Amino acid sequence: MDDEGAHLAAAYADCIQIGARNMQNYSLLKTVGRLRKPVLLKRGMAATVEELLLSAEYILSEGNDQVILCERGVRTWDPSSRNMFDLNAIPTVQKLSHLPIIADPSHGTGVRERVTPMARAAVAAGADGIIIEVHPDPNHALSDGAQSLFPHQFADLVRQLRQISEAIGRSISAPTARA
Amino acid sequence: MDDEGAHLAAAYADCIQIGARNMQNYSLLKTVGRLRKPVLLKRGMAATVEELLLSAEYILSEGNDQVILCERGVRTWDPSSRNMFDLNAIPTVQKLSHLPIIADPSHGTGVRERVTPMARAAVAAGADGIIIEVHPDPNHALSDGAQSLFPHQFADLVRQLRQISEAIGRSISAPTARA
Amino acid sequence: MDDEGAHLAAAYADCIQIGARNMQNYSLLKTVGRLRKPVLLKRGMAATVEELLLSAEYILSEGNDQVILCERGVRTWDPSSRNMFDLNAIPTVQKLSHLPIIADPSHGTGVRERVTPMARAAVAAGADGIIIEVHPDPNHALSDGAQSLFPHQFADLVRQLRQISEAIGRSISAPTARA
Amino acid sequence: MDDEGAHLAAAYADCIQIGARNMQNYSLLKTVGRLRKPVLLKRGMAATVEELLLSAEYILSEGNDQVILCERGVRTWDPSSRNMFDLNAIPTVQKLSHLPIIADPSHGTGVRERVTPMARAAVAAGADGIIIEVHPDPNHALSDGAQSLFPHQFADLVRQLRQISEAIGRSISAPTARA
Repeated sequence: MDDEGAHLAAAYADCIQIGARNMQNYSLLKTVGRLRKPVLLKRGMAATVEELLLSAEYILSEGNDQVILCERGVRTWDPSSRNMFDLNAIPTVQKLSHLPIIADPSHGTGVRERVTPMARAAVAAGADGIIIEVHPDPNHALSDGAQSLFPHQFADLVRQLRQISEAIGRSISAPTARA
Repeated sequence: MDDEGAHLAAAYADCIQIGARNMQNYSLLKTVGRLRKPVLLKRGMAATVEELLLSAEYILSEGNDQVILCERGVRTWDPSSRNMFDLNAIPTVQKLSHLPIIADPSHGTGVRERVTPMARAAVAAGADGIIIEVHPDPNHALSDGAQSLFPHQFADLVRQLRQISEAIGRSISAPTARA
Repeated sequence: MDDEGAHLAAAYADCIQIGARNMQNYSLLKTVGRLRKPVLLKRGMAATVEELLLSAEYILSEGNDQVILCERGVRTWDPSSRNMFDLNAIPTVQKLSHLPIIADPSHGTGVRERVTPMARAAVAAGADGIIIEVHPDPNHALSDGAQSLFPHQFADLVRQLRQISEAIGRSISAPTARA
Repeated sequence: MDDEGAHLAAAYADCIQIGARNMQNYSLLKTVGRLRKPVLLKRGMAATVEELLLSAEYILSEGNDQVILCERGVRTWDPSSRNMFDLNAIPTVQKLSHLPIIADPSHGTGVRERVTPMARAAVAAGADGIIIEVHPDPNHALSDGAQSLFPHQFADLVRQLRQISEAIGRSISAPTARA
């Protein structure tokens, strides 16, 4: 994504997502900092928590205070998962910053059967939200099918997440579908 | 710990713990494989999930089938936590092995205020148990005080864990104190 | 750096450097792929060798075949150096690609006293070039002083590098200063 | 290796090697610290330079001051090599300690064609020695054939290493074969 793409997205979308590979694309961060749209800033593949917060500052310092941080798994030496899903980052960010932090267990694990347990873990760790990929026919999805839940799995998951939220003194509003 | 230490521990203890630095001490693994005591095998600091399972085989192949695996955080490039607590390892192990896997959020985070959220996350991810350090006066503990919960924090945590367990279709038995 | 910056740099500079944080800024890679200037592409902080080569493809596929790769140290769990200088990447790239690869021991180590041994090591490993920071008064340099050589150290180093080059069947042309 | 193995090895061998997986086997380190044989201590797969030096202290503090450290590659997120060969560790150790440090490019790379460039790099970085696997018929070697040099490659390498040593003001004594 570049400056032109950011403006184009802002004309149609409700929220601009900065992907992991652009987390330190400072020019793009400043551009979206001048938009009046919420920005979802994903953690870079080997970015420290401190670097994630410093990247957010590039957006905030341009006047856009609608920044949502996102843990989506980081790179390590263990090939057993596509990424290592660093849930410890959630309480760490919440201690250091006022910004909300959500989690993306679909990219964080890359494998459908791990999405449910790790989505539950993210909420239990205190995440302010989660992004879940769900598809009516994941085996024929155009992208990311292997990490997309079936609709009935998603319904089960939401039920569990409501209970976990209550257990830790929070609550969940109805999920919003994105076409 | 060496062979002599393992035999001495077995004479008094209910369970032998193999620490992270000894996860690939094959001689010690074979020794505890010949004991008739449960063995708690902690994941090495940079051990892959596959290596953890292969280390367990050294114990199992000597005839001791009472092996409990433990995720306790691994080493990465992010200094924001002492370890990166790899909860993804829990569903990964449960897919690949029949062995129970528990989590140690006290060592996995190293900071008291993160123990509660990450203990909740471990249970939500499906851990078969957790180890929590708790102390009546953590600020004067002889070791690991900074990651030890106060008793009232522990009581709150257990209440939350019971609810999370129910949410995911499991239950928790009463905690066992270790002097 | 963004598109406008790339065009501005191209108007004045002999070579465009894409820094580590921009290695996967695909929009910028395509922009410099349409320029007619050599591009120095630095390896990202946690980029695999394969990803470095794939990023080069973004430039090449736009028609600019003057791409020079650069190993500048990567991120690991060892705080004893600012970066881990991965000289193994040099023969690995040379096996997989026709593109030249150079090394940056100043950033790769971050400490003056390690620049000389690691510059020698880079040449001995077969690097097609090196970048060395040198300053007449490094203690008062505006940036990167701690990793800049004194002029007499640089002269000594070049002498050693000539001999190492000969030892491995290569030769060194006279160094080019950059103001 | 355990205590009994260490004593058995000491009865026949000129030098005791502590492998990477045993670098923090403190019981074994103390045992070899009480022997009167040189000890080759290999760096653990994810051990920091500081941890390598601290492991050496376990041997030294028992009275054995014949300790040789060895860089043999460490674990990272890049699958392009079996290990990342951290030559930066050589000047770092030499700054912090009086102990000699050698390098093992055969294990450090795991691939025959990279052994020669990385052996040269290790000597150029100032290594106090190197270990090279060489075999008259590597394709039929019982172990580690893929990283073993052919005899003629080894002869070429030694010639190059002599010149590199001279270039940096050191010299190489005749290599010692180990059956």
